[in-house]
Order: sequence, then C-alpha cells, then structure tokens
Amino acid sequence: MKQETIELTGHIIDSLILPKVFDTIIEDNGDFEVLEFRIGKKKTETSYAKILVKGKDTKHLETILQKLQKIGATVAVPTDAKIEIADMDGAAPENFYPTTNQKTYVRINGEWKEVKNQKMDACIVIENDTPVCKIFRHIKKGDKVVVGFDGIKIEPIERSREPMGIFGFMRSETSTEKPTLTLIREVANEMKKIKKANGKIGVVCGSAVIHTGASRALAEIINLGYVDAFFAGNAVAVRDIEYEIYGTSLGVNIKTGKVEQYGYRKHTSTINLIRRLGSIKEAINRGIIKHGIMYELITKNIPFVLAGSIRDDGPLPEVITDICEAQDKMRELVQDLELVLMMGSMLHSIALGNLMKAETKVICVDIDPTIVTKLRDRGTSQAIGIVTDLGTFIPALLKELKE
Amino acid sequence: MKQETIELTGHIIDSLILPKVFDTIIEDNGDFEVLEFRIGKKKTETSYAKILVKGKDTKHLETILQKLQKIGATVAVPTDAKIEIADMDGAAPENFYPTTNQKTYVRINGEWKEVKNQKMDACIVIENDTPVCKIFRHIKKGDKVVVGFDGIKIEPIERSREPMGIFGFMRSETSTEKPTLTLIREVANEMKKIKKANGKIGVVCGSAVIHTGASRALAEIINLGYVDAFFAGNAVAVRDIEYEIYGTSLGVNIKTGKVEQYGYRKHTSTINLIRRLGSIKEAINRGIIKHGIMYELITKNIPFVLAGSIRDDGPLPEVITDICEAQDKMRELVQDLELVLMMGSMLHSIALGNLMKAETKVICVDIDPTIVTKLRDRGTSQAIGIVTDLGTFIPALLKELKE
Amino acid sequence: MKQETIELTGHIIDSLILPKVFDTIIEDNGDFEVLEFRIGKKKTETSYAKILVKGKDTKHLETILQKLQKIGATVAVPTDAKIEIADMDGAAPENFYPTTNQKTYVRINGEWKEVKNQKMDACIVIENDTPVCKIFRHIKKGDKVVVGFDGIKIEPIERSREPMGIFGFMRSETSTEKPTLTLIREVANEMKKIKKANGKIGVVCGSAVIHTGASRALAEIINLGYVDAFFAGNAVAVRDIEYEIYGTSLGVNIKTGKVEQYGYRKHTSTINLIRRLGSIKEAINRGIIKHGIMYELITKNIPFVLAGSIRDDGPLPEVITDICEAQDKMRELVQDLELVLMMGSMLHSIALGNLMKAETKVICVDIDPTIVTKLRDRGTSQAIGIVTDLGTFIPALLKELKE
Amino acid sequence: MKQETIELTGHIIDSLILPKVFDTIIEDNGDFEVLEFRIGKKKTETSYAKILVKGKDTKHLETILQKLQKIGATVAVPTDAKIEIADMDGAAPENFYPTTNQKTYVRINGEWKEVKNQKMDACIVIENDTPVCKIFRHIKKGDKVVVGFDGIKIEPIERSREPMGIFGFMRSETSTEKPTLTLIREVANEMKKIKKANGKIGVVCGSAVIHTGASRALAEIINLGYVDAFFAGNAVAVRDIEYEIYGTSLGVNIKTGKVEQYGYRKHTSTINLIRRLGSIKEAINRGIIKHGIMYELITKNIPFVLAGSIRDDGPLPEVITDICEAQDKMRELVQDLELVLMMGSMLHSIALGNLMKAETKVICVDIDPTIVTKLRDRGTSQAIGIVTDLGTFIPALLKELKE
Repeated sequence: MKQETIELTGHIIDSLILPKVFDTIIEDNGDFEVLEFRIGKKKTETSYAKILVKGKDTKHLETILQKLQKIGATVAVPTDAKIEIADMDGAAPENFYPTTNQKTYVRINGEWKEVKNQKMDACIVIENDTPVCKIFRHIKKGDKVVVGFDGIKIEPIERSREPMGIFGFMRSETSTEKPTLTLIREVANEMKKIKKANGKIGVVCGSAVIHTGASRALAEIINLGYVDAFFAGNAVAVRDIEYEIYGTSLGVNIKTGKVEQYGYRKHTSTINLIRRLGSIKEAINRGIIKHGIMYELITKNIPFVLAGSIRDDGPLPEVITDICEAQDKMRELVQDLELVLMMGSMLHSIALGNLMKAETKVICVDIDPTIVTKLRDRGTSQAIGIVTDLGTFIPALLKELKE
Repeated sequence: MKQETIELTGHIIDSLILPKVFDTIIEDNGDFEVLEFRIGKKKTETSYAKILVKGKDTKHLETILQKLQKIGATVAVPTDAKIEIADMDGAAPENFYPTTNQKTYVRINGEWKEVKNQKMDACIVIENDTPVCKIFRHIKKGDKVVVGFDGIKIEPIERSREPMGIFGFMRSETSTEKPTLTLIREVANEMKKIKKANGKIGVVCGSAVIHTGASRALAEIINLGYVDAFFAGNAVAVRDIEYEIYGTSLGVNIKTGKVEQYGYRKHTSTINLIRRLGSIKEAINRGIIKHGIMYELITKNIPFVLAGSIRDDGPLPEVITDICEAQDKMRELVQDLELVLMMGSMLHSIALGNLMKAETKVICVDIDPTIVTKLRDRGTSQAIGIVTDLGTFIPALLKELKE
Repeated sequence: MKQETIELTGHIIDSLILPKVFDTIIEDNGDFEVLEFRIGKKKTETSYAKILVKGKDTKHLETILQKLQKIGATVAVPTDAKIEIADMDGAAPENFYPTTNQKTYVRINGEWKEVKNQKMDACIVIENDTPVCKIFRHIKKGDKVVVGFDGIKIEPIERSREPMGIFGFMRSETSTEKPTLTLIREVANEMKKIKKANGKIGVVCGSAVIHTGASRALAEIINLGYVDAFFAGNAVAVRDIEYEIYGTSLGVNIKTGKVEQYGYRKHTSTINLIRRLGSIKEAINRGIIKHGIMYELITKNIPFVLAGSIRDDGPLPEVITDICEAQDKMRELVQDLELVLMMGSMLHSIALGNLMKAETKVICVDIDPTIVTKLRDRGTSQAIGIVTDLGTFIPALLKELKE
Repeated sequence: MKQETIELTGHIIDSLILPKVFDTIIEDNGDFEVLEFRIGKKKTETSYAKILVKGKDTKHLETILQKLQKIGATVAVPTDAKIEIADMDGAAPENFYPTTNQKTYVRINGEWKEVKNQKMDACIVIENDTPVCKIFRHIKKGDKVVVGFDGIKIEPIERSREPMGIFGFMRSETSTEKPTLTLIREVANEMKKIKKANGKIGVVCGSAVIHTGASRALAEIINLGYVDAFFAGNAVAVRDIEYEIYGTSLGVNIKTGKVEQYGYRKHTSTINLIRRLGSIKEAINRGIIKHGIMYELITKNIPFVLAGSIRDDGPLPEVITDICEAQDKMRELVQDLELVLMMGSMLHSIALGNLMKAETKVICVDIDPTIVTKLRDRGTSQAIGIVTDLGTFIPALLKELKE
C-alpha cells in the first residue's frame, strides 16, 4: 500500500472538483482518507481539502495521482518539474508530459509559472524559464521538454459566482428543445458584451452558411466589426464567390431555390476564374466581387485561414494546402480570441477546438445535434451547442446585433 | 407462358409511368412486347402504349399485372370488379382488394366510377352503386366488398405541364442544403394561393413548436385564417396553455431560456387546473387563457383533433383517448384539405398521412431529416421535406404571410 | 431576508448532492451558510451537512427549498405533510405536491413512510396511512391528497461504492464511439445477473426490430426466459406475424431484402386475417403462426401490452385502443421490473419511462442518438444509451446470452 | 425561336433517359417535337428517339441542349469538339467544358474518342489525339483544352437487363428499414464476385472502425485479400496503432469499454513513438506492431493513402500533409477500382467520390443516414447507403466473406 497527500482549494464542491476526486479514486479502486477539510461557509468563500490518497502499489498510486492532477489536485509537497533534453527534431522524449487544454502551471526553481499557448495533446518546453506549449513537429533537438507528472499543477475553471448569461443556463447541454429566438438574443448579447470590452471573436464557417442563403447576413456581421478572425475551407470561399458572381451555390439559385441553367458549371467556372486572376483579392480589386463574406474579410483586413482539405476542387489561390502550415496559422490566430462561434463545419470546428485553451468560450451552431457531442468528446468540453438552421439563425443574429 | 395486354395513356414518359412498367416487368423476370406506341409529339400531347406482358405461369403473370395496375396500367379488355359479401363485422373477405392512396376507379356495370374517401391500406365497399374506401373496423356484415384485382383502375398523378412553385423544384427531395428563407417564402406563396382560391389548409403540430418558442407566431397564423383543421396531441395543448399561464414550456422559460423556479410543477399544475375546470374552453371563458394556439382554435371555431397517446400526462379533457375514435375524426377532417403543413411530429404526421389521398399536398417541416424519409417510406410519397428549426421557421413564415 | 436550516446525509459529495445544493442556491440568487459539516473520512463513510439557506423573502426562500428538496435535502425540523381532501373526481386540489420518479417519503404522524408505486408527474394520496402515487384521473372525490412541500423527503440514488458494470462506465453518456461488441457483452452480463437473482426484465420494442431482420433472435431471447414483460404497439405485432406468415415486413422480404411480389397487400392481409380469426392467440392455436415474438409471448404466458396509437392500421384484436387503459396496464407491469431494455421505439420508451421509478435500470438501444437524449430530457435520467443497429445488436445479444 | 435536333439511343425509357429529357425541356420552359421514335419491342431491344428541341433564343436553346447533353442526348449532326490552347499554368481558358463523372466521348476529326481518367468538375485536355480528364492545377500553358459543348457525348449508365444483387434492389435508396444481416450477405457476395473475376476493391475508412472495436475484423478482411487500395486519415492509423500497442482507442479500452488508466496520454504517446521511429513501417520491423489494419496493409504491400487534415495530431510520418499531393495519389489509386466500400468517414468518402468515375460501384456504410445523402448530393449518385453500426457490420461482413 502506497500513499500520497494531495490538496485542493477553491469552490471545489460546486465546481465539481472534489466530487470528481472522490469519484476517480473509487472508480480506480483506490482508497482515501480526508485529513483536513474546511468548507467555504458562505457563497463567496472557498473551501480547502487535504486528502491522503492510497493505491495498492506505486504504479497504481501514480495512475490515480495523475488523474487527480488532471482534475486540479496538487500534491501537498510539490517538487520541481523534471526536464529532459529533446534528442531529435519533431518528437519528444518518450516520457513527455502530455498537455490538456486547461490552464497549467509548471514548477521551476520552486516557482509556479503559467504555461503559454496552452492547448491539448502537446508537450511543454521551457524557453527562457518560461513553459510553453509545443506540438511535436515544432520540437527541436536540444529543447528542454517537461517529462513525468511532477511539478505540474492544473487550475480548473471554477463555477462562477455571478450570473453568466447563455454560458450559465446552457452548461453541458445541447438540446433542440430550447426557444431559438431567445438563444439567438443571448448569443448576440454575449457578442456585444465582448466587443464592448474590446475582446476578440472568431468565426468558424462551413459551406451550409452559403447554401442555406445566409452569406450576406454573415458578411454584414463581419462588416459591423464582430469578427476578428475567420476560419473556413475552400468550399466556403468558392460558394461565397459563386453566389456573388452568379447568384448560385453549387448551381442552386439562392433567391429561387431552383437548380440554375448552366448550374453545374458555375462552381468550376468560379474556381477557374479566380485561379486565372491569381487571387480573390484581385477579383475584388477588379470589381468582379462587390459583396459577401470574402469581400468583407479582405477589404477590412480581417485575418482568415482557408485551410485545405482533400475534398477541395481547385483549390483557390488563398487556400493553404499544407495542413501543418494551416494549423500553425490557425493556432496563432486563436490565441487571443475570447469567443469562437462555430457554424456548420465539423472538420474546422474540431480542428480549431484542438488548438485552443479551455477558457476560450465556444458556441457551436449546427442543425445536426451530434456535432457538438463530437466536439466535446474530443476535449473541447467548454462548447455549448445550439441546434438550429443557419439559414434562419444568421439573419436573426444579425437583426439582434443591430438592435 | 401466359400473357395479357395492358394499356397506358397520358404523359406516361415524363410522369415515369412507362419506365416503371418496364422496370417492374424486368425486375420480376417477366417479359414484354410493345404492340403499339404513339408518343406525344408535342409538350401538351399525351402518349399511348399497348403492351403484351408475359409471365411464366398464371400466378406469375397476375403478380406482375397487379404491380402494373398499381402504377396505372389497365388491362386492355376490362371486366367489371368482383364483389363479395362481408361475412362478419370488422373484417373483409380474405381476397379483398387493398387500396393505395392514389385516385382509383372501380368498374361497375361497365362503367368506371371513382372511389370516394380514398386512403391507403383499406378496402372498397360498394354503397348505392358508389365505391367507397372503408377501413376494416367499419366493415359490417353484408357489405359489398371489392375482391381481386379485376375492374380496378388507378390514375397516377401526372407531371404537370405548368410551373409548380415549391412542389416543382422540391420534387422527391429533402435536403438541408437549400436556402431556407427562400423556401419559407415559397411555402407562404403556396398558402396564400390556396386561401385565395378558398382551398383548405391543415396543420399537424408537435410540441417542438412551443418549446422552440414559436407558439404565438403559429397562433397568429391561425388568427389570420390560414388554418382550417388542426391535428396534435395532448402535449401540444398542455405546453401551449402552460406557456400562456406561466410563460414556460416543461418548466423552461420561453423568454429567457432558463429553467424556471417551481418549473417542474408547472406542467402538472396546468393539466390539473384544466381538468378541474372541465375543459380548455372553460379556461378561455373564465379569462385564464387569453392567447395562444388553443385560444385561437377554440375562439375561432376551427375544428381540431387532440389525439391521445400512451405518453400523455393527464390527459386534458379535450383529448380523444380512444385511438380509433381519434382516427375517425382525423379522417373526416382531412378529406377536403388541399395542403397539410406537418411540423415537428412524426407520430401525428405519419398517422395523418395514412388517412389522406395522394393528391393532398404535404409539406413536412422538421429539424430531423429522417422524419420525411419515414413519412414517404410509409406511403405518403407526395410529401416534400424542409429541414429547419421550427423556432425560426414559424416566425419567418408568419412574416411572409403578412406581406 | 428569510432563512431555513436544511440537512443532508450520505455520500453527498460524489453523488453530487451537495454540489447541486450549492449550485441551486447560487443559480437562484439565494445565499447560504454552512453551519456544520462532517466529511466522510474514508471511502465507505458518509458525510453530513447542516446548511442555513437564505432567500430575500418567504416566496423566494420556499422556491429554493422546494428545489433543494427535490435534490434530497430535508428541512432540519420537519413537520408532518399537509393533507387536503379531493373535492372532485379526476383532479387534485390546486396545491397538490407533484411527484418526481425518485424514492420519496411522506411524514405522517411523525413517521417517514415510503411512497408506493412511485412515478413522476403524479400526486400522493394517503390510503390506510400509506402514501401511494396516483395519477390525476385515478383520484376520487374524498381522497386524502398531499399538498404543499412540507413533510416530504426524497432519497436520491447514491453513487455506488462497488464496481457497477455497464451502468458504471456508461453513466450519463450516449456515444456512438464505443466498442459495440463489448457493450453487448456487458448488457448480456447484466441480464444474466438479474435473472440469476430472480429479478425481472422488461422489453420495449419498436417495429425496427422486425424490419431489420431481428425478430427471430428476439423471439429466442424471450424463449430463453429473459423477458418478463413486453411493451409494444400494433405495428410490432403485425410485422412479426406478417414475417411469420409471409416472410416479409411491410412487403420487404427479410431474407432477400427485396420488395416482394404482392408485397404491399401482405401488411393489410395480415391484419385482416387476424381480425377474421378474432385474436393472435387463435392464429397460434390453429397453427397459422408457429414462431416469432408474439408466438413466444403468448405460448409462454408472458404478460404484454400492445398499446394503440393513431398511426395503427387495423388494429389487431389484442391492441388496447384506449390509451388510458393501456397506460394503466403498463404501469402495473412496470412496477417490479429491475431492468428495461428499450429497443427502437421513442413513443413506447418515453411512455414507459414516465411510468417507472428512478431505480429501475434502463438501457435504450437505437440507431438514432437523439432518442436517449429525449428520454433523459423527459425525466428518465437513469437511462443509458447504446447507439447501434438492432438488426445486428439483437442477434449478437442472443449469442452472448447463450454463452 | 431557335431549334436543334437531338438523338437518343439505348434502353432510354427504363434507364430514365427519355423521361429526363422531356422533364428538362418542360422545366426550362422549352418546347419539343418528337420527329421519330422507335420503341424496343422486346426486353432486350433498344429504343431510338429523334427530337426537335426548341428554345426562345440561341442562349435559351443552348442552355437546354447542354443539360440534355449531360443526360446523354447527342445533337443529330455533330461537329468536332472545339479546342483552345491554355494561356497559363493551373487554370483553363474561360469557356472550358466542365466534366461530369459519366463516361464521356469527344469528337476529334470526326471520330468519337472516350475520355480517360474520367472524373467530375475537371477539364478535358487532348494529349496525342486522346482526350484526358485534367484538374485545373495540372493544366500547363500550351495544353489543348476542350471548350464549349460541341462534339461532346455522354453515355449514361443504363438499367441492366440482368438481376443485379444489392445494386439492383437498393437503387437510389438509403434506409434504416432493411434487414441488416441480409444486406451484409449481399455486400459479401458482391465482394466475392469481384475478387473471383480479379477485380479490385477499395476501402475508405474512418476512425469509427477502431473505436467501435472492429479494427481486427477489418485487418482480417485485408489479410484475406479483399482490399486493393485503402484510403484514410491520420486518426485511423493512430488509433489502429494505439489499439495494437495499448489496447485502447483515444484512451477507451476496446475490450472493456472503460476509460483506461493513463488513457488520455496513450493517443499522444502513440504519435510520439512512431515519430521517434520515423515510420509505421519501422515500428512493424521492430516488432512493436504485430497486428491490425496498418500492419496488414504494410506487410502485404497494399497501396494506401493517409491524407492529412487540419484536425490531425502529429501527424504520423506516413501522412501526406499537402492535400493536393494526397488527392493526386488518391486519384491514381481509384482509377481501376470496381467497388469502393466507404465506412465511417464523410470527409474521405466525399473526397474519393469526387475523384472517381460514375461506373465505379460505391457502398457507403455509416450509422448516420445523412452521410450517403450528402455523398449523392455532391455527385457520387451511384452510391448506395447502408445505415448500420460498423462495430457489428465489419465482424459480420468478415464472417460472411469466410463462408
């Protein structure tokens, strides 16, 4: 029987930290003894727990401790994190510490330092005494990589003591059974609040936005200044431009709903035209594109990533065809976003979710209720889901934002 | 080898009647010879085909002929329909002719007569020389029931030569990839056109209409005179009334989206209250309910069926708890409807679809794309599907109807 | 400012009772002070909390207290429950206490007594000093109905200290991303364990079971003695019998997957045949039906409910067409079931869920991941979901059960 | 009024070519006159139609003719195709002929020549008098590109006169309402038939195959020689290897269904390990991977593409991170496949569908019924869909293949 003392501090009961600690120990067939417990007597006071955790041998105990650490427990007598020097480019030492997307601290020379650029499934490298999240392919031989689980502390997100708008009452829920126009107003309020405080908002966009007829409404939302970073693929740009030039999306006339004369060639003609011009920007400069999503992004200098996928026709010149390069640019743009609105793209939503920290707020809007489940299953557990039709959601959101 | 001559007339090529005839014979390993064929040389001219159908024996040939008859083929030398007298109440003679929902004629004394109250999966009974669709449980001992397949002619719906609005470009399709607001405008146009011509419109409604926050918009559509018959269950009425009395639906506040204080008891209190009063009507009379779907239906004397289901709490006094009785009333109301708008209820939509003839137009609106597939699979193949969120669809439809 | 002292006992931290108490008070803008707190120091020890809850006025405080009570808190100084005499048949006094599906106690003459036949959304009536759950339409004038929230105690289900098989690792989760054959083995183990201890298992069945080709496998599971109560609708019985007589389901040949010759009439012929015979039982007696689900249920005298719905053709003689009567029989049968396996029917699953207590284990198997979400949203929150194809699930389950 | 004569030959009625021609003309408000019509009098005889098509002006007529051409009509007096010289790399002349995925012929010097490497949404380039499909980015300045619609003939796929197994009775249908084990047997029969005739089979694979526990069964299918080309992404390879090394998929133990101790790090450790070794192949060489999908593919030298996506962690060394390069390799491998089995990946399925000709048979298996709809909507209209659970489908398919 091996044992270790851990500590927990904060609103550890209603933020579910303490319950999860007990749950984990029970689930793993470990044992515990509560050595000390001070409960926050009032709403604003924090609680404190000191718990002796027991495993049947060292390996069992360590397994439990690592899980507890992921929840937010710290060992009572911490040591510094262990460092190992990377022996090659593009991969970490075998025993590397794998990150979560939660706020993480590394103990260096007795001092807890926050990890920069936090994301899930990466390593931590110490650069100039500062811990930084790094993905495998950015590791260089000689990098100081954090290994093992010592000297690592996670600060879980706590239950706010304040009313939290849509993020309060939608916690952990996706449901089609919610009043849609009310939810839209709450999303608009959240966006207004963030912009008022000079926060940044990102948008992930799938091609459903265009073929459900909502591209002009999204363009206007961009024009109003609500979008600070934009993430999409080739299809979104092609269809947006096809609509602006021909009024169609994959040959379907957006105004009439009918399949257009010459319809099927408009998609390929759009791609060919932009390839002939060399860029979307050139098409705007020449006055060929006068409105729409890409028009607003480019004329307003809003940073965007059009990330390539094997499904792409063309692709357009602005599309980044190397997925590593695209990811790097996405990771850079996502760092200072406060809210990301994900609309109609599972691929781009999960991809961006992988790159962001747990504090970034995420609202995922899709007509398919399983999308947000998948997003959350893959670790972006802060995402809340709204199941609705983008063709009506975006115009209604625009209306609320203008009020 | 047995053979029989059949005939086909009409726009049999582009209405897919002739292709289906060939397809059926090939699929069933029969054989055919085209004896005569006159193609409609111009757009408005009909075509004619006389085809010799061959089967390997009498049974095989009959099987094929019955399938062809269902498509719209008639045997070249028709005989009168055969009649058998029902030997008991509530069931037909074993060899009864099972109906489809297509327009059907029965040959009596050498004359083709149209079947009344056409619906699928029923029998035909001759009453005063008139063929009438009857369900099993309405058959009385002594009824003259049509048996076998002789003397029956089906008139399939032909491809219209005119532009057909939403029913033209949406034929046989359900897709989430359509411009939503455009589709909504088309639905509104269809409804306006029907009402202008004094046609009747029915609405099937599921409880999603209320919890997505669209009940007041639907109430206004009813108030504007667009609904001539209304089909729903206990839950729709309970939630509509709960919203009108407490502002909630199953305890969720529609205006704020939050779970209400006392929330869970509002559902049961609503039911108990109406049961205490004896009827929804009494609650309206006493001024307890002043708005909403049930309010509009009852104060405007619009016929409705609240059909019971085993899922019901209560139920409310107006609910018909015997499903046979509910069906009978639904069948009666559906007869003269020109269009049925089905929103958010698979159970009630499929139920009503079973009771109606193929000419009645059906638009099925649901956030779940599989609903319309199931509706069509079960024989209501005229249904077109719009995949969207009722919480935004109904308010947008109301807006279009008012323009 | 008004206040009241409440108490909590048990594994209140990892069973999430205490966190929910704090959460509720914060969410409702109430306040609290922890007066006493003893934490269970070891895994098997329970905890105890005495908390002063504060609301801004009496109504606010009561609202909070009622929510806390639903979670499992009891007021520190309890009084007896209040009783009011029902003033009419079929409805409760306005202030009736609305039940949950959790284990509930009523304080009568200073003594806590467990409520019988616990279900959600009903009333409690005192019969011979015993509190019993009653639905509105069973209330008779003169019944002693519990009103208000005094003298009511709920005992929430606690986190087990023991490993719990599939109910442990699937807690609160539905996911398509699970190893299917492993899950099937766990379901089989659970069923074997229950039968070994002479527990009872119920099955809810939708018609997907037959048209995906799994009816014979389910029949064999029934034959093996694994099913003690069976809940379905008219369609299940019709298709099961159609398959046994003609080898088809709605005209599709189950062995070949092809649409059968004469296919569409086999459905109606089946119904008519059984109606002619007067009952399914008679068809078995005459040797017309020799296998299948209905055959096993009837020959083995296993109680079943075929509950009517407005979608039904026929219906068959054994179908209960009045939904209140069907519900009553379902409620009776569900009382002593330990596990209910719900397969392929949203309507019957939610209906049965409404009638059962929270302790009854529920496994819901469907190809549509939203079914279990809806079941849980409507209060059957103990249900765990397996998203798979019944056409392969049931044969694989049978195989495991036989091993 | 402008007019042009077109011709149609073949089984043009039951293959729906003639109905579509009439339909298109009516839909576009054109007009027609049938000049000549010879119907195939017997099952095996082809039909012939000569039709005068009328439009209100040259543009209107051309629009209609281009649509008719896409269906399979040829102008009665054909001219040679027009050629234009590409004026730049990576894009076609503006008036290029956009391809479909149907078998296409180009008229060069009075002779009809079949287009090689047919795929949708590309151009046709004449190389050494042979027309070849080329995507935009492969066009080089100086290429002879086919422009306009003259001298192009499409040969639509005709209704077979023979029974066609699963491709016969599943035509144009996706349904969850089919006997699953029967469908699986039909798929196995199709695969056996193709392999017996030395045809080639491709497999598209999503990560659901691994986390539903079916990877070993798929590995055995590969081992048996049924897979000639394999298409997947990074996640499939990572999870397959994670399972082979740790027994888990994204940390979930496949044998027990439980989340594993150390679970979350097994995914990243797998990636890091393979990156350290330099390749999956090296891990096999060193005996670290001894079974599984990747093991079978590599040791049996079966060509595969692991195509990168922005969602990828790592990625593994074998993953092609440039999507253009990945597409090129996919296009190459897909050319001589007779059947592609698509399982659990929308992205890779639609991507491969874009690259293949219409003759290649496609079976798409997924638990989500909307996947095959999307695949078909995007032009892979030959795809038939089976809605089932891969976790049971693949083991059952293996069993059938071994029989």
